[in-house]
Amino acid sequence: MNWPTTALTEKIGIAYPIIQAPMAGGMTTPQLVAAVANAGGLGSLAAGYLEPEEIRLTIAEIRTLTDRPFAVNLFIPETVSDDPERIERAHALLDPYRRELGLSAAASPVRYLPDFGEQLAAILEERVAIFSFTFGVPKPDEVEALRQRGIVTMGTATHLLEAIVLEESGVDMIVAQGLEAGGHRGTFVGPPEQGLVGTLALIPLLANHIRIPFVAAGGIMDGRGIAAALALGAAGVQMGTAFLTCTESGAPPSYKEILCHGTEITTTLTRAFSGKLARSLKNRFINEMQAFEAELPGYPIQHALTREIRQAAARQGRPEFMSLWASQGCPLCNPKPAGQLLTDWITQVEGLLRW
Amino acid sequence: MNWPTTALTEKIGIAYPIIQAPMAGGMTTPQLVAAVANAGGLGSLAAGYLEPEEIRLTIAEIRTLTDRPFAVNLFIPETVSDDPERIERAHALLDPYRRELGLSAAASPVRYLPDFGEQLAAILEERVAIFSFTFGVPKPDEVEALRQRGIVTMGTATHLLEAIVLEESGVDMIVAQGLEAGGHRGTFVGPPEQGLVGTLALIPLLANHIRIPFVAAGGIMDGRGIAAALALGAAGVQMGTAFLTCTESGAPPSYKEILCHGTEITTTLTRAFSGKLARSLKNRFINEMQAFEAELPGYPIQHALTREIRQAAARQGRPEFMSLWASQGCPLCNPKPAGQLLTDWITQVEGLLRW
Repeated sequence: MNWPTTALTEKIGIAYPIIQAPMAGGMTTPQLVAAVANAGGLGSLAAGYLEPEEIRLTIAEIRTLTDRPFAVNLFIPETVSDDPERIERAHALLDPYRRELGLSAAASPVRYLPDFGEQLAAILEERVAIFSFTFGVPKPDEVEALRQRGIVTMGTATHLLEAIVLEESGVDMIVAQGLEAGGHRGTFVGPPEQGLVGTLALIPLLANHIRIPFVAAGGIMDGRGIAAALALGAAGVQMGTAFLTCTESGAPPSYKEILCHGTEITTTLTRAFSGKLARSLKNRFINEMQAFEAELPGYPIQHALTREIRQAAARQGRPEFMSLWASQGCPLCNPKPAGQLLTDWITQVEGLLRW
Repeated sequence: MNWPTTALTEKIGIAYPIIQAPMAGGMTTPQLVAAVANAGGLGSLAAGYLEPEEIRLTIAEIRTLTDRPFAVNLFIPETVSDDPERIERAHALLDPYRRELGLSAAASPVRYLPDFGEQLAAILEERVAIFSFTFGVPKPDEVEALRQRGIVTMGTATHLLEAIVLEESGVDMIVAQGLEAGGHRGTFVGPPEQGLVGTLALIPLLANHIRIPFVAAGGIMDGRGIAAALALGAAGVQMGTAFLTCTESGAPPSYKEILCHGTEITTTLTRAFSGKLARSLKNRFINEMQAFEAELPGYPIQHALTREIRQAAARQGRPEFMSLWASQGCPLCNPKPAGQLLTDWITQVEGLLRW
């Protein structure tokens, strides 16, 4: 069956309006990005925590695996308010976990995140097809520099007002993130608690008010969710958790294993790992840190403070200390190769929608 | 176009798989229930706060307006734990609002809710076509009595485990309530915070695990949401907020007016009105009571304590003290007659779905 074009497939020249979400921390391997691209979707490299040189090398590796367009994703930098007391308190809270994992006492990280300007420079030089971002809006000169190089820009909104801000900033496309989504909330206007709108309610609102193309994200796990998103008025979907357990995903084995046993009520919103609200499967770290969430440093400080704990936990196969980002739809995770997942979903959608 | 039957339309003999949600407090007038029934959907009378004699009279009135099937909805009773200290504290918190509305100091209500056994007896005697319920499961002998009279039973679930409990209790159908929904959460297994699953994530899970027919509720405002719910695997939809502003709705004019100005981020979950978690448009009462929510008496005590305040506020057109139950989809409210809404939605769905 020939799929009709949507505003998304037309804009970026892909066969199917399905974006594999950027998932930072090594999940979006070059193999995953390329497999999705080669199957007719849009793969995304999550580069928010990568140094500029790593970004360049990874883009080069993806390009050895596919000649199709793909996206590279960064985090828009936020003002970091260092509070030595909060940081000291967080260290005290985290030290027992470090000891349990055999890590030495922590030194404060020199830098919380790679330099955004240098990351963006790498993306501009490499002229990737799509630059996607979250946690805010690039500055006007950055949006202009991307446009001049023919790079399509795609920002994340969690409610209508944010979508309007993105549209008015000259961004090309929007990812509308419903509260079902795994990982960090992209909310950047108003308090994070306000950006908790169900995908089913969010998409028709954008369809009524936003003129640029937008895709639905949050809770979409297979062709049923894709068909629903298109019926609601989205030009496509972005799916993260649905790709986490696939063959090419870089998720650690213990994470993949626990995802398959998750239920829709075992996910929760937490600030414990990064200082920013995110949806994860509940585990010991989240449960024990819950009482202290209000005292923790903000993002990205807390994220930097927990980095070695998360990494050691992944190496040692101890999911009780890992950030187990997961959508409320995680019980529908599937361990097939990414290309097979896409094919299955496309067949499902074809049986459901009238075009 | 001839709509195909779904497990819902077949089971109860209606043309379209669209249920008008029971909305207590006088919203579901006999005119609304009958208009939906006459247009080929399933109307529902919210009878949870009605005395048995009122239930009988209202059913009789609906029957003068339609000969189609309709549902009557009750609240499954919960254990009430009277705590004199909490009640006294709540009175102290509520007295300033009573004064502002010109009400005298409050006497504790003698009874919090009408007697469930007597309410159910009225429904059994009247042999209504469908008995729907929320906040729990009827006792086995009650389920049996309903079955013996040929009354179809329909319970509310907010996550998969509750759906399984309903199915195993011999209930005929399920309403799966996503977190977008306006009004009270139906959660009855586990803490209410656990029953906050987006409709888009919830429905495919039920489709994979539940054999009895179920419909989607929460955030569905028009044909796009109906098509999405059907694509996700539901046998139909239940829509509440979408009917609140229609001609036949019993919502007070000030409530209808404010609903049309709501946005997806102006709703919030609150316990302030009833002691039970519910989604409302934010207003002064919710904001001011927020700090005290943990100290309030539980449902239905707090509901009884705020009753006169809510009623006086409605009479006086003061939405700042009313429970403004609203879905996250409320910006899509539409003031047309109910029958016209149904016709519009049906046309939309026909353009979207392949059958």
